[in-house]
Amino acid sequence: MCSHSGLADTTELARDAFTRELVERGLLVDTGVPGVFGKNGDFEAIVRGLDVMVEAAGAELRAEVFRFPPVISRALLERSQYLGAFPQLIGSVHSFTGDDGAHAGVLRAVEQGGDWGALFTSTDVVLAPAACYPVYGMATGTLPANGRTIDVASYCFRHEPSADPARMQSFRMHEVVRLGSSDACVTFRDGWLERGAALLRALDLDVRCVPANDPFFGRRGRLLAATQREQSLKFELVVPITSAERPTAVASANWHQDHFGELFAIHQADGSRAHTACVGFGLERITLALLRTHGLEIARWPAAVRDALHL
Amino acid sequence: MCSHSGLADTTELARDAFTRELVERGLLVDTGVPGVFGKNGDFEAIVRGLDVMVEAAGAELRAEVFRFPPVISRALLERSQYLGAFPQLIGSVHSFTGDDGAHAGVLRAVEQGGDWGALFTSTDVVLAPAACYPVYGMATGTLPANGRTIDVASYCFRHEPSADPARMQSFRMHEVVRLGSSDACVTFRDGWLERGAALLRALDLDVRCVPANDPFFGRRGRLLAATQREQSLKFELVVPITSAERPTAVASANWHQDHFGELFAIHQADGSRAHTACVGFGLERITLALLRTHGLEIARWPAAVRDALHL
Repeated sequence: MCSHSGLADTTELARDAFTRELVERGLLVDTGVPGVFGKNGDFEAIVRGLDVMVEAAGAELRAEVFRFPPVISRALLERSQYLGAFPQLIGSVHSFTGDDGAHAGVLRAVEQGGDWGALFTSTDVVLAPAACYPVYGMATGTLPANGRTIDVASYCFRHEPSADPARMQSFRMHEVVRLGSSDACVTFRDGWLERGAALLRALDLDVRCVPANDPFFGRRGRLLAATQREQSLKFELVVPITSAERPTAVASANWHQDHFGELFAIHQADGSRAHTACVGFGLERITLALLRTHGLEIARWPAAVRDALHL
Repeated sequence: MCSHSGLADTTELARDAFTRELVERGLLVDTGVPGVFGKNGDFEAIVRGLDVMVEAAGAELRAEVFRFPPVISRALLERSQYLGAFPQLIGSVHSFTGDDGAHAGVLRAVEQGGDWGALFTSTDVVLAPAACYPVYGMATGTLPANGRTIDVASYCFRHEPSADPARMQSFRMHEVVRLGSSDACVTFRDGWLERGAALLRALDLDVRCVPANDPFFGRRGRLLAATQREQSLKFELVVPITSAERPTAVASANWHQDHFGELFAIHQADGSRAHTACVGFGLERITLALLRTHGLEIARWPAAVRDALHL
């Protein structure tokens, strides 16, 4: 991904120093696994403030509120075609279903430092790769006349171990999803790019809007990535966290056209296939951008920023 | 588990009817997987109110606040000996690490309805079985003079698919953990049994305190269960949800003696091995107990209960 080695080195240094500082201050707790961090009460208060801001913006659009757990049904993931685009990011959940003898085998593997997970079998669930997937699953059928707007948030998982504190494997995403006509979805996406940028600027963050660049997998993925760019379907709001030259996406807004409408048999009131769009805010990433921009002493942040976040 | 068939039938009927009602009212969203539910804004407002109540009770003990993601490190689980006691409840997380050719194999398995999860490999993480495990991992070393008190909450996973809405596979647990001397831990556990019962009674719930009865696995497990009962280490607060005769545990308080102190090399300031204790509140279970007790129309709940929960 990084072609300019000078830049990459600077970024890596900045990234390591930032992570170290966050851990020393207790804002993040190192768990020994890259991208899996505990957070202290100060960090969580910022996340909560962001959650409230996004929920309030969604409420202005009279969004219905739903919350889903960090696991989703395996059948839902299969239906979503996520396995085709991002197999490398998925977390599949496996459990032990054996008897006392098999259990002894598991404990032997643990003792010998072996791969005891290999003795487990696939369950009916996988980790949620994004907060919005359960919404498509629950929307199968016919939408009301003006479609639906749904506020949803959950812990998401993406298997991409990294030293970048802004690339966590387990993180929270707060989304608002629109289901309805293509016009409604485009208006929604474009409106949220402005609304999202305004929300982040109210927090004194240095925001820019750029076309998205998702890490589609393999040969087939290069085609999907090119299509995404050409069709200008998805945009990201980026803010500098560990690099000014390569700012980090902290929010994105995506018009899926009728992709999910087709996969999940979602129809508009007139019988035509529904379009969908979503905006997603990465809560840990925005929190890190705030800590990077305003410093690790939250009491010394600009009063307007603290007020906006109820800190 | 159920020896009296008449009782079991009544309970099953009550359970199915209650789940149906919750789903029809939109409080729970069926995801097609037993014990994995979405929740609407009303359900979540109750959970948030409970979270605030437990956090306030913890703050009176000057608990430090930490939050951990729904996945923990595989090494932490191994060290905790959870694999010995409850292998059947664990969720091990597996990912795809292959190339384009292997990816084609995964997609073929998906198309044919095959077990594509079997083509994935164990990652460094598993789903958190309880909220308190990361606390023992971060406490390795020497405690301050009076030990520590830590408020922690997270989504937990237990692989026990069930038609009982109060036995979810993915659910939230809010815990307060004490690390220090044996006296401090016993006082903490007993204090929380009273504090927890008072908290639940303030919500007009019909609470009783009983010795715990954990589902230890297999032959070895029968011994662990007997020891748990004999030593009177863990107690549960139970409230009727789907059965008056067999109320559901909605909170528990447990003195682990120096079990985790030994496993995680946690010492008191005087060099002796630390004891630990924890109290855990099952947020979905308490919410279900409230809905069962006060009805599905939250606006018609007793004013004192709504006030306590900021509803």
